[in-house]
Amino acid sequence: MNSQKMCNVAKLLALQSINKAGSGHSGIVMSCGEIMQALFERHLKICSINPDWAVRDRFVLSAGHGSAIYYSYLYMLGFLSLEDIKNFRQINSNTPGHPEITTLGVDCSTGPLGQGIANAVGMAIAETMINARMKDFSHYTYCLCGDGCLMEGVALEAISLAGNLCLNKLILLYDMNSCTLDAELKITNTEDIKMKFLACNFNVLEVDGHNIDEIDKAIIKAKKCKQKPSVIICKTIIGKDTKYANSNISHGKVLSLEELRSLEKLWGIKGNFSIPLDVKNDIKLMQKLKVALYKDYNNAEYKKFAGKSFNLDIKPFGYDFKSTRELGGIYLQEYAKFKENIISLSADVFSSTKTKILDGGIYSKDCRLGRNIYCGIREHAMAGIANGIALHGEFKVVVSTFLAFVDYMRPAIRMSALMNLDVIYVLTHDSVVVGQDGATHQPVEQIDSLELIPNLTTIRPCDENEVIGGLKLAFEKTPSVLIMSRQNLKRVDNSSTNLDNGAYFVLKSNKAKINIFAQGSEVGVAIQLADRLKRHKILTNIISCPVLSLFNIKDLPCKSNMKNIAISYGTGWAFLKKIGNVFLISNSNFGKSGKEEDVLKFLGLDVDSIEDKIMKYLGK
Amino acid sequence: MNSQKMCNVAKLLALQSINKAGSGHSGIVMSCGEIMQALFERHLKICSINPDWAVRDRFVLSAGHGSAIYYSYLYMLGFLSLEDIKNFRQINSNTPGHPEITTLGVDCSTGPLGQGIANAVGMAIAETMINARMKDFSHYTYCLCGDGCLMEGVALEAISLAGNLCLNKLILLYDMNSCTLDAELKITNTEDIKMKFLACNFNVLEVDGHNIDEIDKAIIKAKKCKQKPSVIICKTIIGKDTKYANSNISHGKVLSLEELRSLEKLWGIKGNFSIPLDVKNDIKLMQKLKVALYKDYNNAEYKKFAGKSFNLDIKPFGYDFKSTRELGGIYLQEYAKFKENIISLSADVFSSTKTKILDGGIYSKDCRLGRNIYCGIREHAMAGIANGIALHGEFKVVVSTFLAFVDYMRPAIRMSALMNLDVIYVLTHDSVVVGQDGATHQPVEQIDSLELIPNLTTIRPCDENEVIGGLKLAFEKTPSVLIMSRQNLKRVDNSSTNLDNGAYFVLKSNKAKINIFAQGSEVGVAIQLADRLKRHKILTNIISCPVLSLFNIKDLPCKSNMKNIAISYGTGWAFLKKIGNVFLISNSNFGKSGKEEDVLKFLGLDVDSIEDKIMKYLGK
Repeated sequence: MNSQKMCNVAKLLALQSINKAGSGHSGIVMSCGEIMQALFERHLKICSINPDWAVRDRFVLSAGHGSAIYYSYLYMLGFLSLEDIKNFRQINSNTPGHPEITTLGVDCSTGPLGQGIANAVGMAIAETMINARMKDFSHYTYCLCGDGCLMEGVALEAISLAGNLCLNKLILLYDMNSCTLDAELKITNTEDIKMKFLACNFNVLEVDGHNIDEIDKAIIKAKKCKQKPSVIICKTIIGKDTKYANSNISHGKVLSLEELRSLEKLWGIKGNFSIPLDVKNDIKLMQKLKVALYKDYNNAEYKKFAGKSFNLDIKPFGYDFKSTRELGGIYLQEYAKFKENIISLSADVFSSTKTKILDGGIYSKDCRLGRNIYCGIREHAMAGIANGIALHGEFKVVVSTFLAFVDYMRPAIRMSALMNLDVIYVLTHDSVVVGQDGATHQPVEQIDSLELIPNLTTIRPCDENEVIGGLKLAFEKTPSVLIMSRQNLKRVDNSSTNLDNGAYFVLKSNKAKINIFAQGSEVGVAIQLADRLKRHKILTNIISCPVLSLFNIKDLPCKSNMKNIAISYGTGWAFLKKIGNVFLISNSNFGKSGKEEDVLKFLGLDVDSIEDKIMKYLGK
Repeated sequence: MNSQKMCNVAKLLALQSINKAGSGHSGIVMSCGEIMQALFERHLKICSINPDWAVRDRFVLSAGHGSAIYYSYLYMLGFLSLEDIKNFRQINSNTPGHPEITTLGVDCSTGPLGQGIANAVGMAIAETMINARMKDFSHYTYCLCGDGCLMEGVALEAISLAGNLCLNKLILLYDMNSCTLDAELKITNTEDIKMKFLACNFNVLEVDGHNIDEIDKAIIKAKKCKQKPSVIICKTIIGKDTKYANSNISHGKVLSLEELRSLEKLWGIKGNFSIPLDVKNDIKLMQKLKVALYKDYNNAEYKKFAGKSFNLDIKPFGYDFKSTRELGGIYLQEYAKFKENIISLSADVFSSTKTKILDGGIYSKDCRLGRNIYCGIREHAMAGIANGIALHGEFKVVVSTFLAFVDYMRPAIRMSALMNLDVIYVLTHDSVVVGQDGATHQPVEQIDSLELIPNLTTIRPCDENEVIGGLKLAFEKTPSVLIMSRQNLKRVDNSSTNLDNGAYFVLKSNKAKINIFAQGSEVGVAIQLADRLKRHKILTNIISCPVLSLFNIKDLPCKSNMKNIAISYGTGWAFLKKIGNVFLISNSNFGKSGKEEDVLKFLGLDVDSIEDKIMKYLGK
């Protein structure tokens, strides 16, 4: 097998597809071609007969802008056609600008730098968890990252945790080309990366990143390491063999046909999108070898474990006054008992978010059966790792922190939504009522900011019944967000466990002239207001709206001439989106440190102030 | 001076204030009391005569939950009264749950972990920049951080950059108590932190964090280091001297009066909120010494430099067809020429966001006069650093990346808004029209998610005039966001440089029955639609809305019976908030990799599709 020639063909296909598309990233094609060749030809255990093969090796291209060279290898391994390669970056093609899991053979959508490293850490964790539970379940997780990925905080957090957890089947291939889009790396980063990895308990190997045999040998060594994750630092040249070599200009450069022709000459390949006969034969041989490695994982036990039906009917225990975070914790236990493949992650706040699986044990290097992963104060990596675990295919992953800090992991939440993953975010301490910790700990705009993310189901229950219904929905409609109160909430009369329509009446009168819409703790506020308005002879309906994204105002059996009022302790824009013509009583200001009642008064959100606003709106 | 006794009093005041408030963080009070004593008594050059003294040392309590002990020292140095201490965590007090810059003597609002380290790096950068420009301008920046801060990605990014920039006057005091809220540190973090700091080019010192003299000596050593930033690893015991010592239970524990009494006994102090006479005398002496250090920095040159009036009237050069990112870059140069204290930061995309100050030089360890800071691919630290530079007091800081990646720095943007800082975020590549890079690079919900943040001015210009007006506003109404197109946009007839009302007519007819609202590139789309609707004999007004937060629909001179339509390539919820009754044509789905026109068609956002939607809405 002429590995270098095959690699040259792969690189040329990638560069030609970039040229054809008129955009793309050439520099990385030349810097990581040999790394990809060593990995895909000699190690990666994948097979196009069954792209979803459970025990296949996983591969994450964290440097997602290197998609073109990735597609070359997916083509050579039979996952993509030459037509796909030619359609690079075209609408509805299998070869989008950055890798997407909808493409056969792609294990992870990437693009935003750093995320892929956290995703790979998650996959490696999932492997150890299945490995500990099933026989003959074992594979490696590879991740190709660049200088950019290793500057991102999400990656640094994930690396620290990976070292702590001794994920020895995780192998990072670091394409160290020392150039980024804007500049040579030395302008922004001069750290001793080897020492940094060593400090994080990594096995560190260094190779010439253009020597396929050297890379191959390093991967063999890394696979043998039983105690630590490995990083193989591959010293490479961006834009190698072109005049842009070792320059940041190479990063986003589209090579001209003329420049491609010189490369063809230099590399001994002829023609556009063409594959020499000897390379064709090598490709066939490589495919055969992969097929020979393939052995379906037809374990009934595995299939049972990995199954995701969550048909669980929970009857309320009957808590009349409890915070929704506590209720969430109580009923999460029921799901956890029912399905072994639910696991729970927290960024150092299990004791506050109440999402720890009791008797689930703590996952660690010594206990791969543990169902609770203590992620440390690393929210962003936690969410990226959750995505990786979910991508692996067997788990429903619960992730928790305080709502005020959801912004720390927002880029990873967006990826959960984009990849449609089985991740359930439990976000507690859901409003300014958090009180004394002050403005930095009080969410205001966060709920709306989550409602804005496409393909994400945001749920905010008001009491025990809605917590039960909310959990059910959260497990069904992943990725999802459960937003929970810190403070105790009273049971709401007529509340329901059926949240399928997103909203429903908890108070209804034929004589009502007003609809009040609210969710979470504000439903209780609406009930207080209804009582007060009644004293003014104003009758109201109250509509609890735990899942605004599922709600359609047209489904509401209501007189059309009624006035609609929505109440929210946060910004509340989602009500505007869903109800349309509505008088919104909400808060657009930062919170304040103080007792709950003082904070609400300060912000004009106490019941008296809200009553005044409503009376003024009604012209009374 | 009996330093330990003063420290004991400081700790007791803190613990008593927590007890009185009924909430707060006791553990850290006991772990970092001696560190604070060494720093505040023997080093920190601050003075309550003039809290804003320009050359004062800066201090950032990155572990913001340690506010109580911070307030004790601010009291002892004359910034706070004993009454303030007793009002800990009460509404409108000077002693909120986490430190806020509205309190005299507090240099930085903190709370969300990790941010403070990036802020301190920014302050240290600012010091070097002024130091290089003015005579006798020199001070240190201290930052107290805990185990939690050092797990956060934003901190890890900032540390890497601080080492690269050799910020030798930055001194991190690391309160290594090895416990976090949920668990002992070893469960989540076993890295060799000393090695990690060494890898990042830090001078590393290690001390017993309960020995004031040892800490003092280490600070003296750190101050002498001329090439590197320093970290002093202070080994401490959380909840020291209580039964919760060395346990995570200590973190958020409120000590009972009984427990406080044992501490009083152990530490030789009597009474609630009381200060023994000898300590009172020591406090007086300490205050005197601080006053003796004080020398106002009355440099006229400095005052001129640090002045922030931006009364610049720019006349358009006359570009009829250019991207707003390019136009922004062109006119940013005019501001940069006009005011020397504008600096620009980018996360590796200066060449794409066009925000580099030409001839401004690159800031580096060898060039402190450089006005462009290459932050590497570290968006989150970049924004935190920008906050720190702005907090220092002299600079207007321009920060840039792609809009799709704004989520990476969102927690820091929230802090810009909360602290009302002079930071201007320039976010380019503003819609799905980015095209071939695909869904991960195409913003959809991002503009609305920024509009939601309190006290942040979001501006999206449609052409050259609005770019000029937008820049002016962005510099005036900081913190602000300028959202810029990657693609070229045609000049809009009747566009204005005056954006004070947030929105205005660019097309107006007395016979119009429809108002179309749009911003940025969609204004051009609205113009195309107006032409098409005219063919159907439907006349429209077009309202360009570059600054929705400044816009009030009531100010619009319009017939009340008109139909309102808003067009947005993103989610567009801000139009709902500002206009109320409006038919919104927008996009709630992720983007797609493909050519611009194909992507728009795929999402139903091409002009034909929008026209169809409008005609249907109008019942035609």
